[in-house]
Amino acid sequence: MKAVSLSFIGFGNVGRGVARVLMEKKQFFRDRYGLEFRVVSISDSSATIWNEDIDLKEAIMIKESLGSLSRWTNDYELFDFRPVDVVREVESDIVIDVTNDPKAHVWHLEALKQGRSVITSNKPPLAFHYAELTEEAEKRGLSYRFEATVMAGTPVITLLQEGLKGDTIESIEGVFNGTTTFILSEMEHGMSFEEALEKAQKLGIAERDPSGDLRGIDAGYKGTILHCVAFGPMAFDRIEVQGIEGITKKDIARARKRGRTIRLVTRVEKGRVTVRPMEVPESSPLAVYGASNAAVIRGDLIGDIVLKGAGAGIRETASAVVNDIIRASTRL
Amino acid sequence: MKAVSLSFIGFGNVGRGVARVLMEKKQFFRDRYGLEFRVVSISDSSATIWNEDIDLKEAIMIKESLGSLSRWTNDYELFDFRPVDVVREVESDIVIDVTNDPKAHVWHLEALKQGRSVITSNKPPLAFHYAELTEEAEKRGLSYRFEATVMAGTPVITLLQEGLKGDTIESIEGVFNGTTTFILSEMEHGMSFEEALEKAQKLGIAERDPSGDLRGIDAGYKGTILHCVAFGPMAFDRIEVQGIEGITKKDIARARKRGRTIRLVTRVEKGRVTVRPMEVPESSPLAVYGASNAAVIRGDLIGDIVLKGAGAGIRETASAVVNDIIRASTRL
Repeated sequence: MKAVSLSFIGFGNVGRGVARVLMEKKQFFRDRYGLEFRVVSISDSSATIWNEDIDLKEAIMIKESLGSLSRWTNDYELFDFRPVDVVREVESDIVIDVTNDPKAHVWHLEALKQGRSVITSNKPPLAFHYAELTEEAEKRGLSYRFEATVMAGTPVITLLQEGLKGDTIESIEGVFNGTTTFILSEMEHGMSFEEALEKAQKLGIAERDPSGDLRGIDAGYKGTILHCVAFGPMAFDRIEVQGIEGITKKDIARARKRGRTIRLVTRVEKGRVTVRPMEVPESSPLAVYGASNAAVIRGDLIGDIVLKGAGAGIRETASAVVNDIIRASTRL
Repeated sequence: MKAVSLSFIGFGNVGRGVARVLMEKKQFFRDRYGLEFRVVSISDSSATIWNEDIDLKEAIMIKESLGSLSRWTNDYELFDFRPVDVVREVESDIVIDVTNDPKAHVWHLEALKQGRSVITSNKPPLAFHYAELTEEAEKRGLSYRFEATVMAGTPVITLLQEGLKGDTIESIEGVFNGTTTFILSEMEHGMSFEEALEKAQKLGIAERDPSGDLRGIDAGYKGTILHCVAFGPMAFDRIEVQGIEGITKKDIARARKRGRTIRLVTRVEKGRVTVRPMEVPESSPLAVYGASNAAVIRGDLIGDIVLKGAGAGIRETASAVVNDIIRASTRL
């Protein structure tokens, strides 16, 4: 049995989702991979708990009932750490970033320098600092993995990294943002843009500030990350992004008349990433619905591969984070 | 630069396809992976050529113009080896089986015992001897890879092995045989079974003896291999196979009336593999056409993933073999 210690930074929906999977499937990870995970620290924005083997069940309960880890005063000492302190102070094999911290690259880099592998579902560090982070990891023989950043648990990054090594990738085209898919679908059914957005916010699909989704920033992050994986580094500020805010019911009706639907399509080719609303035929793999994402990957040998699956969801995102944890652990 | 030596056993369409890719993309493999491949032996059913660095261009030319390697008497000495002699005598890092030899497991095992990794597009060794072969490779720290055996180059095996490590696979359902898809499609357009089969044979889609495809044996091999990967060993003779020979134009017409199409569907769950013709809705990912294959993989965390891509073709199959060669090489 190999013991692997983990530091969680962030303990929101995704963090707790990962923690739940680690608890529920403890025996599976032992039997199948000979891995035994111990969580040695958990940080949210209020506090860090730090202990050689944290009781995940209790941690989840406290967080969900009391709202923040700082309220947990019974069993563990609380620390007032910034993430960069956590990765310096807490001895762990793997640091798991499930925050939305836009400056997380600073402590990702510090974690690597401390000899810890890093797994992240947080996109900006990748979209802005890919080369620096992956080179540091490479140099030190550590893992830096980020499957959850694109298509949640649908393993598009692993497929690109491990499944098409002989191919020269020619292009990747996909629908990677569920919020815009939801709004565009609702508009097809007659709602205005504003009504559809309001519904998405009520259902918790769109964030209170939905501009990152609507303006194509989220899809742009994902396109940038895929470019980095398939073609090498790309600066996010060089990509071309157009959101769905200009789309009217008329546009959608016109598309429907031609048997088409409008989706926010991300296209990645060597040196170029574009995000824009496009008419796609109803029969196209890109005509997705709900939280489904789809990618069409074109390689010089294999031709077109279609990969479809969940692009959101707690368990679905946990699937990717846990896959990364296991892959990183077997390298330790 | 890491030099990796390869022995080709089999030099038919797939073997030559792989050789062509190795020639054409020599610089790509150097730049991207620091790998330099040398082919040290090539065997067809007539002879083995054995040399420290075979000229692939010439080898392909000879084979294609003269029909067999035994006619190549100018540059290289010819050996009258069985495959088991090749893997014993020829010093190589990786043995590549691109034959249809149903008894190939014997020399796969011998290759592993000689310390060589094995890559195969040949299904029976996997379908009948999975546990023995993979355990021998594991024990010796060697690679035993077989991506090309299912869905040609579409990396379904790599996806299962590397992309879903945290998931418990619940089922895999797919269409894995292109010949039956072709015949069923033609029958939808009005041909009888016999006419469609004849057309498939004329086009080189069906083999002269098409029974392995029509009776579901080929799809059954693939289902067995997927079971081995996802759930552990499965004996081929325990699976349930029904081919498409009983399908009539009437069956197809009846399905069409309901918006459905008939496809030969392979279903894999823990302890059970079935192959049978099934009605699938036109909107289902399994309603594939041409040489496309499709798989729907269900995991306990990720839910359903759809993977679609080429299930046949020379370059497409070479994509998988070369991916395996690179993955095996980076472990050497």
